[in-house]
Amino acid sequence: MVLLEFSMSPLGQGESVGKYVSRSLDVIDKSGLDYRLNPMGTVLEGEWDDVFGVVRRCFERMKKDCNRISCTIKVDYRKGHAGRLSSKVASVEKHLKRKLRV
Amino acid sequence: MVLLEFSMSPLGQGESVGKYVSRSLDVIDKSGLDYRLNPMGTVLEGEWDDVFGVVRRCFERMKKDCNRISCTIKVDYRKGHAGRLSSKVASVEKHLKRKLRV
Amino acid sequence: MVLLEFSMSPLGQGESVGKYVSRSLDVIDKSGLDYRLNPMGTVLEGEWDDVFGVVRRCFERMKKDCNRISCTIKVDYRKGHAGRLSSKVASVEKHLKRKLRV
Amino acid sequence: MVLLEFSMSPLGQGESVGKYVSRSLDVIDKSGLDYRLNPMGTVLEGEWDDVFGVVRRCFERMKKDCNRISCTIKVDYRKGHAGRLSSKVASVEKHLKRKLRV
Repeated sequence: MVLLEFSMSPLGQGESVGKYVSRSLDVIDKSGLDYRLNPMGTVLEGEWDDVFGVVRRCFERMKKDCNRISCTIKVDYRKGHAGRLSSKVASVEKHLKRKLRV
Repeated sequence: MVLLEFSMSPLGQGESVGKYVSRSLDVIDKSGLDYRLNPMGTVLEGEWDDVFGVVRRCFERMKKDCNRISCTIKVDYRKGHAGRLSSKVASVEKHLKRKLRV
Repeated sequence: MVLLEFSMSPLGQGESVGKYVSRSLDVIDKSGLDYRLNPMGTVLEGEWDDVFGVVRRCFERMKKDCNRISCTIKVDYRKGHAGRLSSKVASVEKHLKRKLRV
Repeated sequence: MVLLEFSMSPLGQGESVGKYVSRSLDVIDKSGLDYRLNPMGTVLEGEWDDVFGVVRRCFERMKKDCNRISCTIKVDYRKGHAGRLSSKVASVEKHLKRKLRV
């Protein structure tokens, strides 16, 4: 299982890209994978091919009407660990013995 | 105002780096800046010098006992927009007319 | 065609990771895709499935003996543009009317 | 000393952003820091405050006429190592006992 965070934006569609980001979130939300949306990207959890398959579907959707697209992806693989969408944040809070803003 | 997401990890301190990440979150949480922690990083909102000042303090803390450090940073500046730690996610939910996992 | 830059490192294998990075470069160099190595990553040019296929093969190789792996990826897609491994740098030099350090 | 790779682009200035990227390279090239330009970004080497100072100057220049700006930054700090703009690539080539495309 990997955690994958990504964000994807068109260049050349103006300064507001919420319409395009929303279409990606629609793809993500219907993918069946667990995820968390944050102000700078979306974190998915799953097997390598599954999470990258979602990124690819978002790309295929976006390039239908966008000629230039930027995408940043960060992957954290850890053997034998699952449920890390929740456990990584919980682990930090446990270390600090207090709640953080999530 | 900018949004800045970052994550910072030592190399050469083993596979579990929660202890080091927790110290960064302590610096962030006490910085006075608004932030959101997610499973892959922390998003800060503030002026350029303030948010980068926090990243620098996390780095200064980590290099006291870490010889190699990796850090990824992503910045989204938008003139005249504030409160985007909440509003960017809300905007996507409004576009899709439903709640997402956050 | 997309440009894809990536870097991939193990956590928990010590501070020097050159051995692992070299194995990735061996995969890349033998892939048949065009690429450029720089001090912080490798830039590949090709179709989406081809460049991501290379990243996946580097991951499969690394996880044989690494329990935790970090990977950052950046993609720049531009419709109808090829040869950008060379032309993007050339375009900047043309704008500035002078040679830069490459 | 740190290695810092970054790229910075405006959103809302059309699909071609070479004009804006060139202005950043002009700032970088005149900064006095050593650097290498590649097709996806620029790698700087120097002390933390110096390399981040260059990124900040590129940002200040860009926001004069750009209302939205995206920037990705990756930092690799290694205690007691300098000259890594050249030595990291050389180390990989030495491991593989052959020249790579740079």
